Amino acid sequence: MLKIVVDAMGGDNAPKEIVKGALEALEKRNGFKVIFTGDETAVKAELKNYKYDLSRVEVVHCTETITNDDIPTHAIRAKKDSSLVVGLRMLKEDEEVGGFVSAGSTGAVLTGGIMLIGRIKGVMRPALCPGIPNVRGTRTLLCDCGANAECKPPYLQQFAVMATAYGKAAFGMKNPTVGLLNNGTEAHKGDPLHQEAYALLQETNGINFVGNVEGRDIMFGDVDVVVSDGFSGNIALKSVEGCGKTVSAVLKQEFKKNFSSKLAYVCARKQINKLRDMLDYAKLGGSVFLGLKKVVVKSHGNSKANAFGPSVLQAVDACTGNLVGEIESMLHASGFGETHE
Amino acid sequence: MLKIVVDAMGGDNAPKEIVKGALEALEKRNGFKVIFTGDETAVKAELKNYKYDLSRVEVVHCTETITNDDIPTHAIRAKKDSSLVVGLRMLKEDEEVGGFVSAGSTGAVLTGGIMLIGRIKGVMRPALCPGIPNVRGTRTLLCDCGANAECKPPYLQQFAVMATAYGKAAFGMKNPTVGLLNNGTEAHKGDPLHQEAYALLQETNGINFVGNVEGRDIMFGDVDVVVSDGFSGNIALKSVEGCGKTVSAVLKQEFKKNFSSKLAYVCARKQINKLRDMLDYAKLGGSVFLGLKKVVVKSHGNSKANAFGPSVLQAVDACTGNLVGEIESMLHASGFGETHE
Repeated sequence: MLKIVVDAMGGDNAPKEIVKGALEALEKRNGFKVIFTGDETAVKAELKNYKYDLSRVEVVHCTETITNDDIPTHAIRAKKDSSLVVGLRMLKEDEEVGGFVSAGSTGAVLTGGIMLIGRIKGVMRPALCPGIPNVRGTRTLLCDCGANAECKPPYLQQFAVMATAYGKAAFGMKNPTVGLLNNGTEAHKGDPLHQEAYALLQETNGINFVGNVEGRDIMFGDVDVVVSDGFSGNIALKSVEGCGKTVSAVLKQEFKKNFSSKLAYVCARKQINKLRDMLDYAKLGGSVFLGLKKVVVKSHGNSKANAFGPSVLQAVDACTGNLVGEIESMLHASGFGETHE
Repeated sequence: MLKIVVDAMGGDNAPKEIVKGALEALEKRNGFKVIFTGDETAVKAELKNYKYDLSRVEVVHCTETITNDDIPTHAIRAKKDSSLVVGLRMLKEDEEVGGFVSAGSTGAVLTGGIMLIGRIKGVMRPALCPGIPNVRGTRTLLCDCGANAECKPPYLQQFAVMATAYGKAAFGMKNPTVGLLNNGTEAHKGDPLHQEAYALLQETNGINFVGNVEGRDIMFGDVDVVVSDGFSGNIALKSVEGCGKTVSAVLKQEFKKNFSSKLAYVCARKQINKLRDMLDYAKLGGSVFLGLKKVVVKSHGNSKANAFGPSVLQAVDACTGNLVGEIESMLHASGFGETHE
């Protein structure tokens, strides 16, 4: 049975919300087991509060934790018994383990993923890819959203290929449209990086490149995959997040004002909550780290159970959809399969 | 009396919404006049529909218009009798004309501004600066939001100085906090451009630099000015716009669904509309083009009257607050006043 390793100690709300979220994922979907890495005593103390299928949960004890203050490369080397390193080693060594999910330090997860799991042959730079809710009710895959602050044009080409593979493997997209995140839609827009990337994307086999798109097209457009250098992608992601949080805050403030506004909330609660759920897209999962030999999902640092659970299911979907195989075959078809930079 | 020149032909909804918006601005504020440049017949046909103080409106006839398809530098040189060029010339030559507002081609407005008005002494690169609504109920000045796709670190330093001057001159900010838009808040984040800009900003006199900020801090933070290279700034601006449009669309869709949801809307209309007004921030005005010798405001291309009117008032505020003088003195204080690159 598919095994997903969960870093029980990563994130601001660990282990409580991590354990809770993972158990919720187990309840929603069959066909996989969870292995928690972390402080056994703390994890078991949380597990005690729930009813769950004991055969689908294991705990592997770890004595160390990597924090947000640790320097990633040092910590990966030094803290060999951390929940993150132990978890990634299990992912590497155990064939039955298909994926690893953590809400811990992004730098450590990325560094650990590259050092301990390794890149698929031909991948220049693995990239983070979340699915952002959009106006059509589907998800827009934004890649890279922050793993690579400095990019060369061929990296963006590969981001397009890997995110397309992800859309097909895990979201059932048939022929996902791909746009290049740029300033303006005209073909020659942007700085040299983006102009060169545009030209490369046009000639890339196996992707459905539709041209430049703007920041507004991430949520309010009709493109499935938005390719970006990691710096801009992170700006886009965080800007959308800030807008969403502001909307939620303003709604809360307006509806709490007085008796009549509270009454208004009661009438409109269903619609308001539907909107808030969409905006709190952490609830839809984390970011998959595309380009590694096995599935790694980075959940938001402040994830509660209702965000971590979906991240676990995201890992399950990526495994059952054979994300890694899809990336390998698409990279090969687009001419990247042979070299490693 | 202060004169503001309005390009009556620029934008998707010209001249109708431009004229309407400008007249609305005149009604809301005293102490200035509007001079429309454009096709006299068309403008006067619109003016006929309104009652207004005739002594506060003039029309200057123009026989040409610059479109979004024109190449800016060519059009500025070739279409000498366009509403844009004529308007900018009036701004340049007439001391009483303090500002110019257009919803036309951004490239043409920027190019025209630089070629015909010219940069304040010491300014390397003028920059576009809109005021984005934020969770605190004030505005966050985002500079540069798209005039300069490629930047060097000193440009960002100047963006900080000019946007600080704008915050003081037009928004009454006392000591606006300044953040550098980056990936993460830690000091050494981002690519070399941002690392160097960070170092320069730390040593810049006269600004209140608080460090790196993320995309979410534009709307959901507590920083007054967000400095950015133009490429990232444009990505941030458009991403926020897309989120806002999506929220409005989802609300509309949810409330229209059936009878009971329509009833719910009636109850919650006040709160919903308050939110939608905030999100439709075009209604709060356009972007001021900081760094030119006189005030130029670029209003969104698809502005209707309720967005164009505020853009006109933005120009008035920038003039009455002596934006240009404030930029000059702040540039001088931060050591930029002497050289022109």
